[in-house]
Amino acid sequence: MNGAESLVRTLLKGGVDVCFANPGTSEMHFVGALDRVEGMRCVLGLFEGVCSGAADGYYRMTDTPASTLLHLGPGLANSAANLHNAKKAGSGIVNIVGEHALYHIQYDTPLTADIEGIARPFSHWVKTSPTSKTVAADGALAIQAARVAPGQIATLILPADTAWGEADGVADTPDTPPPAGPQKEVVVAAAKALKQGNSAMLFLGGRALRARGLELAGKIAAKTGCRIQAAGGTARIERGAGRVATLRLHFVVETAQVQLKGVTKMVLVGAKPPAAFFAYPGKPSVLTPPDCETTLLCPVDGDPIAALEALAAELGALNEKPVGVAQAGRPERPTGQFTLEGLGQALGATLPEGAIVVDESVTTGRGFFPYTVGAPPHDWLNNMGGSIGFGTPVAVGAAVACPNRKVIAMIGDGSAMYTFQSLWTMAREGLDICVMIFSNRSYNILYSQLADVGAANPGPRAIDMLTLDRPTIDFPGMAKSLGVPGTQVHDLEALTKQLSYAMSQRGPYLIDVVM
Amino acid sequence: MNGAESLVRTLLKGGVDVCFANPGTSEMHFVGALDRVEGMRCVLGLFEGVCSGAADGYYRMTDTPASTLLHLGPGLANSAANLHNAKKAGSGIVNIVGEHALYHIQYDTPLTADIEGIARPFSHWVKTSPTSKTVAADGALAIQAARVAPGQIATLILPADTAWGEADGVADTPDTPPPAGPQKEVVVAAAKALKQGNSAMLFLGGRALRARGLELAGKIAAKTGCRIQAAGGTARIERGAGRVATLRLHFVVETAQVQLKGVTKMVLVGAKPPAAFFAYPGKPSVLTPPDCETTLLCPVDGDPIAALEALAAELGALNEKPVGVAQAGRPERPTGQFTLEGLGQALGATLPEGAIVVDESVTTGRGFFPYTVGAPPHDWLNNMGGSIGFGTPVAVGAAVACPNRKVIAMIGDGSAMYTFQSLWTMAREGLDICVMIFSNRSYNILYSQLADVGAANPGPRAIDMLTLDRPTIDFPGMAKSLGVPGTQVHDLEALTKQLSYAMSQRGPYLIDVVM
Repeated sequence: MNGAESLVRTLLKGGVDVCFANPGTSEMHFVGALDRVEGMRCVLGLFEGVCSGAADGYYRMTDTPASTLLHLGPGLANSAANLHNAKKAGSGIVNIVGEHALYHIQYDTPLTADIEGIARPFSHWVKTSPTSKTVAADGALAIQAARVAPGQIATLILPADTAWGEADGVADTPDTPPPAGPQKEVVVAAAKALKQGNSAMLFLGGRALRARGLELAGKIAAKTGCRIQAAGGTARIERGAGRVATLRLHFVVETAQVQLKGVTKMVLVGAKPPAAFFAYPGKPSVLTPPDCETTLLCPVDGDPIAALEALAAELGALNEKPVGVAQAGRPERPTGQFTLEGLGQALGATLPEGAIVVDESVTTGRGFFPYTVGAPPHDWLNNMGGSIGFGTPVAVGAAVACPNRKVIAMIGDGSAMYTFQSLWTMAREGLDICVMIFSNRSYNILYSQLADVGAANPGPRAIDMLTLDRPTIDFPGMAKSLGVPGTQVHDLEALTKQLSYAMSQRGPYLIDVVM
Repeated sequence: MNGAESLVRTLLKGGVDVCFANPGTSEMHFVGALDRVEGMRCVLGLFEGVCSGAADGYYRMTDTPASTLLHLGPGLANSAANLHNAKKAGSGIVNIVGEHALYHIQYDTPLTADIEGIARPFSHWVKTSPTSKTVAADGALAIQAARVAPGQIATLILPADTAWGEADGVADTPDTPPPAGPQKEVVVAAAKALKQGNSAMLFLGGRALRARGLELAGKIAAKTGCRIQAAGGTARIERGAGRVATLRLHFVVETAQVQLKGVTKMVLVGAKPPAAFFAYPGKPSVLTPPDCETTLLCPVDGDPIAALEALAAELGALNEKPVGVAQAGRPERPTGQFTLEGLGQALGATLPEGAIVVDESVTTGRGFFPYTVGAPPHDWLNNMGGSIGFGTPVAVGAAVACPNRKVIAMIGDGSAMYTFQSLWTMAREGLDICVMIFSNRSYNILYSQLADVGAANPGPRAIDMLTLDRPTIDFPGMAKSLGVPGTQVHDLEALTKQLSYAMSQRGPYLIDVVM
């Protein structure tokens, strides 16, 4: 057994049985091992950002790391923007990055690069395996690192000679230490803070936004009268009919400030204190009201569900009936010209049970929550790293993770162009994904951002950097060229009809919403 | 004048008047300044790898750095694979990377990342400008760094508050020290080595492969009988009728060894000693024959033309008639089924004078040199960093640099998928580029690489990672969706006809060569 095969076997033994791959020469032994070992599902992406984004989506839906297979430094670099998003989302990923044979690196041939240096800003754990005998053990350590709560990026660099040299067997993955539980005095302090009622807020992030976490938050709110607020960035919210509803903190500073107004006690559960996405001249970076006291009940790398259980117990709220539970109910099917409300209604009217919504709608989709709150139970995944090109790859990973659930990827047209290669993988794997493109034919968000940073009244050259209408992009045509059928819609009736069709069939489908 | 405007004015004053941009919020002040300052040509790319590759192509054709404008860490990361290629090619680029306002970084908001850490593996020079007063001076230092021979990657990180704060005026770019000239004793040693005649070799890289360098090499060969050989990786070869012809060192180890066979004295001019692209079990990394003595006449960061002038003078060869000058002549227009030879003939039969060939043909185009050697004078640009996705962006930059020359981008279908967004920029800017896609519907090179690394007899799962035919990609459809007309050809006659058409018209056009 060579090093590459020992690594594949170690990954499988450690529960890592999906690999999102874009391999090259230095990864050929890993690829070659796939036919000698049963059980690794290898999914080809035509660009590395598809692979890393898919691994992110896979983790969000399974809480289990997938692996990526990447070609030396540049392949890793191409994956890095979506690794950044995954890192911010707390997704665990095991990156396997090929490297030249160790004796070859000194010749500084074309693909030679500082792979560890490239990996470090995007990884919690980085190692170059030194010999074919250590590859299996290093792979096991990478899995262990990827599993650290809430999930970490582990990058294992695999020199070609360690892949083709003789291995020492398969390694067992060591247990990952569980996150620290809630401390009694912090639980008591949080309970005391929340007794302030409506001027107190439970501020939730990470797994606190799964159904059980929200249910506990709803019980606590029932007991104390506190408010419940989701963070601005949320890896996955379990929502819909029967679940405790919450809104995300808004991107726009002034709107977020309204959401937080009057809060004098904030209890953080799996979330950092609220901060503005960007800095703007004359606006605050910190969004917590100035007179607000903050209690950190559970850090981002803690166990928010355990913390909420302890808090509910402390408050005697475990048997409360949660407040804020969404009632089943859908909006009417909208008609007429596109409005942001109408788009939300179209989604709310058609969202099937168990849907996974991957939201990279940027300016368009910010107001969709009220229209979908009573739809059948579903998951909603947002970008936590802010690097666009996140949506279609994450949809790929979510669909691989959950083959029996419909995935809906809502993507701004600007964002769609970064990782459009995802559609080919959707076609190849027959993934059940409906891609909605919101074609406003601009980087629309940047118009408001120009004003917000104080660069208002843009001239023609500035506007030229924000517009995507010269030429317009034919998204259904592009999808078709990659094997994905699709269509264009120009009003809400056509959109709702197309969404109904997309939900009723299986496989990838694209709807270009021309706004 | 704010910091961003002082930077734009400093770039212009320093001769950097093109910016390949994919901006976001933190770059809005730079964008806003474009309308207050005359002279900066800003070209929008829909993915950052388009921008960095375009800056590489621009430098190769002008020996002048362009700038890029990138959005924080992830934007820089998306540009990094083509920065890697540019760095290996010795192309000078000034990257302007937006960053959060300095006081905002502490809040670790979604786009916060270690931008300097991301930049370092891909840059020769990295700096975060600390205040709006220093932005202009730091921009000038970045230009100076980018101009260091043969060309360097300089990355200036521009925090938003340094962009919007008050500046201190415009800065002058300091002179860049010229590269060291050839040392007399090395010139004498090289001259002595080359007197060995046919067992001696001038091994040329970098600007030694411009017309004047090759002419000098031809004179030296006329005097000494030495061989002339281009390195495997070449940023730009000036070739065609009337120029001294040379072949590049082949990618395949055994073929390269044949090219170098019998060489006992090698003189390096602007090139490193020849090494294998990858390591393979049982094959050498170093390709110089074991008994060969090497003389470094001019390092990669030297002045190869000056070195060759000195060497020719030392040998009394300046008035020699160069050997190896290509005679004008084109192949017959080929017909019939596709063969590699036929593809080379089709190109050789149609290449117009002044063409710029950007070659990312990978397996297909390796043998095209003999068929194009007698075509009218043209330039040939190769990938020196080995990261695919290089070709169409470099073509964008070459076309911006040389608006009156036809650019021909030859791209493997696998490679084409990494940075296909380039086509939109070609359409938007009306760039005169003919894109040829060689659709063998696989990562064809990897079949031979599997065998070469000793992972032969791939099974179905391995082969699945190398094939692009499920589904097939409709490249003309994809091009059309991005505003670029195109067609598919299935035999040599149709290809030659389409190439003739493409050469006769202006603007982007795509030919999908279905092999």
